[in-house]
Amino acid sequence: MSLRRTISFSASLAVLGMAAAMVSVPTTSARAEEGMWTFDNFPIQAVNTAYGTRLDQKWLDSVRESAVRLQGCSASFVSGEGLILTNHHCVVSCIQDLSSAENDYVKNGWVTANREEEKTCPGQTAEVLTEIVDVTDRVLGAGAGLEGGAFVRARSSEIEKIQKEACGDDTKRTCQVISFYRGGQYKLYKFKKYDDVRLVFAPEFQAAFFGGDPDNFNFPRYALDAAFLRAYEDGKPVTSPVHLKWNADAPKEGDPVFVAGNPGTTQRLLTVSQLAQLRDQQLPVTLIQSSELRGRLGEYATTSEEARRVTVDPLFGLENSFKVFYGQVGALTDPAFFGKKVAEEAELRERVAADPALVERIGNPWADMDAVVATQRRLYLPYRQLEAAAGQRSSLYSYARSIVRASKERAKAADQRRAGYSDADIAAMGRRLSTEVPIANDVERIALSFWLTKTREYLTADHPQVKALIGAENPEELATRLVEGTRLADPAFRAQALAMTPEQIAASDDALLKFVLANDDAAQAVRAQYEAEVSAPSSRAAEKIAQARFAVYGTNLYPDATFSLRLSYGSVKGWTEGDKTITPFTNIGGLYERQTGASPYDASERFMAARDRVNNDAVYNFVSTNDIIGGNSGSPVINAKGEVIGAAFDGNIHSLGGSFGYDGELNRTVTVSTSAITEALRTVYNQPHLLRELGVRR
Amino acid sequence: MSLRRTISFSASLAVLGMAAAMVSVPTTSARAEEGMWTFDNFPIQAVNTAYGTRLDQKWLDSVRESAVRLQGCSASFVSGEGLILTNHHCVVSCIQDLSSAENDYVKNGWVTANREEEKTCPGQTAEVLTEIVDVTDRVLGAGAGLEGGAFVRARSSEIEKIQKEACGDDTKRTCQVISFYRGGQYKLYKFKKYDDVRLVFAPEFQAAFFGGDPDNFNFPRYALDAAFLRAYEDGKPVTSPVHLKWNADAPKEGDPVFVAGNPGTTQRLLTVSQLAQLRDQQLPVTLIQSSELRGRLGEYATTSEEARRVTVDPLFGLENSFKVFYGQVGALTDPAFFGKKVAEEAELRERVAADPALVERIGNPWADMDAVVATQRRLYLPYRQLEAAAGQRSSLYSYARSIVRASKERAKAADQRRAGYSDADIAAMGRRLSTEVPIANDVERIALSFWLTKTREYLTADHPQVKALIGAENPEELATRLVEGTRLADPAFRAQALAMTPEQIAASDDALLKFVLANDDAAQAVRAQYEAEVSAPSSRAAEKIAQARFAVYGTNLYPDATFSLRLSYGSVKGWTEGDKTITPFTNIGGLYERQTGASPYDASERFMAARDRVNNDAVYNFVSTNDIIGGNSGSPVINAKGEVIGAAFDGNIHSLGGSFGYDGELNRTVTVSTSAITEALRTVYNQPHLLRELGVRR
Repeated sequence: MSLRRTISFSASLAVLGMAAAMVSVPTTSARAEEGMWTFDNFPIQAVNTAYGTRLDQKWLDSVRESAVRLQGCSASFVSGEGLILTNHHCVVSCIQDLSSAENDYVKNGWVTANREEEKTCPGQTAEVLTEIVDVTDRVLGAGAGLEGGAFVRARSSEIEKIQKEACGDDTKRTCQVISFYRGGQYKLYKFKKYDDVRLVFAPEFQAAFFGGDPDNFNFPRYALDAAFLRAYEDGKPVTSPVHLKWNADAPKEGDPVFVAGNPGTTQRLLTVSQLAQLRDQQLPVTLIQSSELRGRLGEYATTSEEARRVTVDPLFGLENSFKVFYGQVGALTDPAFFGKKVAEEAELRERVAADPALVERIGNPWADMDAVVATQRRLYLPYRQLEAAAGQRSSLYSYARSIVRASKERAKAADQRRAGYSDADIAAMGRRLSTEVPIANDVERIALSFWLTKTREYLTADHPQVKALIGAENPEELATRLVEGTRLADPAFRAQALAMTPEQIAASDDALLKFVLANDDAAQAVRAQYEAEVSAPSSRAAEKIAQARFAVYGTNLYPDATFSLRLSYGSVKGWTEGDKTITPFTNIGGLYERQTGASPYDASERFMAARDRVNNDAVYNFVSTNDIIGGNSGSPVINAKGEVIGAAFDGNIHSLGGSFGYDGELNRTVTVSTSAITEALRTVYNQPHLLRELGVRR
Repeated sequence: MSLRRTISFSASLAVLGMAAAMVSVPTTSARAEEGMWTFDNFPIQAVNTAYGTRLDQKWLDSVRESAVRLQGCSASFVSGEGLILTNHHCVVSCIQDLSSAENDYVKNGWVTANREEEKTCPGQTAEVLTEIVDVTDRVLGAGAGLEGGAFVRARSSEIEKIQKEACGDDTKRTCQVISFYRGGQYKLYKFKKYDDVRLVFAPEFQAAFFGGDPDNFNFPRYALDAAFLRAYEDGKPVTSPVHLKWNADAPKEGDPVFVAGNPGTTQRLLTVSQLAQLRDQQLPVTLIQSSELRGRLGEYATTSEEARRVTVDPLFGLENSFKVFYGQVGALTDPAFFGKKVAEEAELRERVAADPALVERIGNPWADMDAVVATQRRLYLPYRQLEAAAGQRSSLYSYARSIVRASKERAKAADQRRAGYSDADIAAMGRRLSTEVPIANDVERIALSFWLTKTREYLTADHPQVKALIGAENPEELATRLVEGTRLADPAFRAQALAMTPEQIAASDDALLKFVLANDDAAQAVRAQYEAEVSAPSSRAAEKIAQARFAVYGTNLYPDATFSLRLSYGSVKGWTEGDKTITPFTNIGGLYERQTGASPYDASERFMAARDRVNNDAVYNFVSTNDIIGGNSGSPVINAKGEVIGAAFDGNIHSLGGSFGYDGELNRTVTVSTSAITEALRTVYNQPHLLRELGVRR
């Protein structure tokens, strides 16, 4: 459940310049399984030696071409006709979008009898990595000699130029420049992109998320967190000759296993001062605010069946990211864990200090970073409330902000615009905005009112921008007025509004567009200040620290996660904590022992109905030592022959510290096995056509 | 608003053995205004010298005899006929108890035309300190040579014995042994106790709490946070010849002012390891959980007018304590603030190390404490969820637990019982239980379901005690069943249930009583372990550190706050932060400038109606440098002549670090002035009889 990329926070980290790649800590205690390796630097020989496998470049290419990137998730082609395996929790938004008050497919599952019943997931794309090009020199060169905002703009602009040169306006491809090793490298990743992705199969929420939030990040688990999508082009399923062969047999304990996917963000080389800021300010405020919003939505969900239905997805996201951040704070407030980070930094600084030439070259970037972090602590709350977390996940607010900012950028010459607002970007935005997506007005109202209330609480009623936002209204009334006074729930209106000028927006009668426009200059000023005083100088300091690490430890290191395709290796293995040993497998029979009939421990109706027929011995979920993180959700888990044997969907509770460091004794990946998916398709859901497509003989 | 004692948390701290008194940090930077002094150790000469005042023992005695302790709050007699001044927020629970769906006195205010209309506040007591007796030797002697649980029990039992010897079963007196200087001293405080306390006057919530949560802990403020009670005996107002004379004139900037009241808890001498545990675990978990509950209740409040009404008081408490704890975390995560605590500890340890005789006597109590804190980090969550915060403020749960524990203790011989369960205690409990108090079933259900859900979340579904608590139900269903299946909302039944044996409870059909009984052994085992492994050894270590401090710094120190009567001195003074200077006064006219008509910035109807008649120049609220903390709410603010000039009701945002240290540059007490109360009684509420009683000539 947990491995979906935690969008809001990692996005905010990215904005802070903190999601940039970082290198690993090569201490002697680092376990063999540590590392989220890029496909152009996978330690193939070391792995073959350690595991007795015979991986080769062909194996790597085949896995890479089978791997699929979804928004915030990972996946893989598992048939020649575009069939994609991922997690249920990666498609739950889509299922919710396809549902209505009358037909709740989240609750009842999405089961198709044939391809005509496969429906497009609004806004969903699927991307396959086709090529990697080194563009480090161009990107680093663009920022040379610049500081602050000018540095940020020059870098962004060069990156945009590289991407544009490579992909032009081709909507069937994605070209993305990705930072690795914290600015040590920049690579252009080229993708084939599918933008008609249809929902093929999803179990009932209660089968996929059995045990709910209490079991999330825990093991043993009994979750069918799997779903199938299909990529279409020109209205027809795509041909995908390179795909992973489906192996319905579960692995054995000790078997080597590989996970190919897109880990979102790790922060294993933040400085101690940066980690302290996360521990002291950013993570606590995020946990506190998301907890209150969780309470609001949770209580609202009790008011009606429809309220319950429309809050499933937002609550699910809030609860999942809550546990992620809670686990992260847990690691950072663990004296032993934090002490290790302190010791590692001290060691590196000592070794740098012993090398006068290196000191001459890089100066003291840790001191630089400490000064930046002091500024960050001062600017963080206004930046968070007025810009980074503005609107608090309200879809309508997000539409309004995109439209307002596009209107302002369009008035500028092409080379003066902010990144992400080229004509092609705005055209792409138009396609997204005109996609039909259901809007729950009460959820929108709760989100906006919550955001306004917290902004006033954290910045005080006397803050000029709070006065400008709220005026003489109160947050609840204002939020209600904005939601009731906008037509942005209508995709046709959104598309039309995207063509408006700022003057037309100001003169319109759309309350939300006018509200966002009226406050946008101030919000962008806060962003600009944050970029100039925090993001840019922390990037500069981080690059110097990266240089120090390369100089001291060499270059055979894996980069921190940046939601780019990685391969992790490991083996099927349980773990021991205190006097408890957790074995690596659960089987389907265990589901029936754990279920009580009371939510969230109520097995789905179909599973209960199939109780007497199902193979209780089939392996359900299993754990392995692979080093993965949020964003890896849906990643194919692959055996040494290159066959898919499961979809990674979670980590155990100990994996949450993985953002900052990997502990091979305790960190575990949790996977739903192909053996369980196969058994479920056969016995619980009666899907012979899908089994045939997967090559499973009955 | 904020200065009401934050019950749940400080109670939990007290249980942790952490609320015991601690001595101040006598560094050179300590401001003259620092200190919450006991009446038997007030630095009268130093104050007279510094402020040019002429305080004497008579002044002190008169103030002490006028000071009143309420549950969680402070107050004072202000007439010869038992009239008591306190804060509105100290009586809001009473107002809510006296209200109903038809008559919402919280919203409309409680205005009486004569004494017949004064109504008893359910459960409210008022206590006046009459005598202080040193009992240090008896208490310390009782624990000598004992460890762990035996130590805790021996101390508790001796304390109970002292109290009983002094007060017997006299229900008109309270005898309480209070710890000072972290176990350096124990004193018996004897009180005259009034248990018929009636509500005389309270303004509308909107007048008392204008600006609501956003303005709470901020200044400038415009809050009439004042109310009047009256103590009765035998159905008649008591005679109170010793009381504070009402002075309706506001002080001038720089005037010396004194605050007499009951600061709840400060923790200025916790060790760094204890502060880190608070910072890393206890405060964050409290903030996170209280935020989610706040969201639940806040959203529930929107569902009906009645839901709004019954959530005013619980939300108010949650929001207020949230800010307190948020401010405390803010201080502990401020690198400069925490660095100062680290430096102070290092200095003391260094000076101890330089004194071999002292080392010989006390050993290394800091190392002892570090080991205790490591255990505490491991035991804290189960202790919190299963015992300290069990029931999450559900009144019904609290009744049930009292009844269950009384039934178990009553079966034991008198000298084998836990503290607080003597026959006299159980009789007193019976009087409290039989008091009529309205119960909001939805709020009870939300609280219980929230507690059960979080207990499962934090301890996991696989924890044996979680399985025992929740069984095959889910928390929502279970909470509903417990609330619907109990008669404990009926005071007659509560009184009757208190007489039941455990066997009768087990055989009864009361779902909640049976539930609490079934889980009580486990909860008490968790408590016993925590007391033995955390509370007792941390008390021992703290006592040794207290000895070290006395040895190094001498004994002329004030003790940490322990909700016992203290006197603080200071002067009327604003403060400067950044480029802003905040002046110390607001006046009534400012209210009309700040109000927007939208909650919480809507002035009350009566205030709006009086707009043209009211004296806009009258001082409304003012700030002073007095060192106070939660529990001081309602404290009389007194001039050098011993006249009351206001009621303290809040601190500014900087005062929140006051739990751990006082900063005279920034910490400020916020007071509602007698000039504003007088003007309101005269012009807004038309209360000539009260003005007459206060000796105010029209």
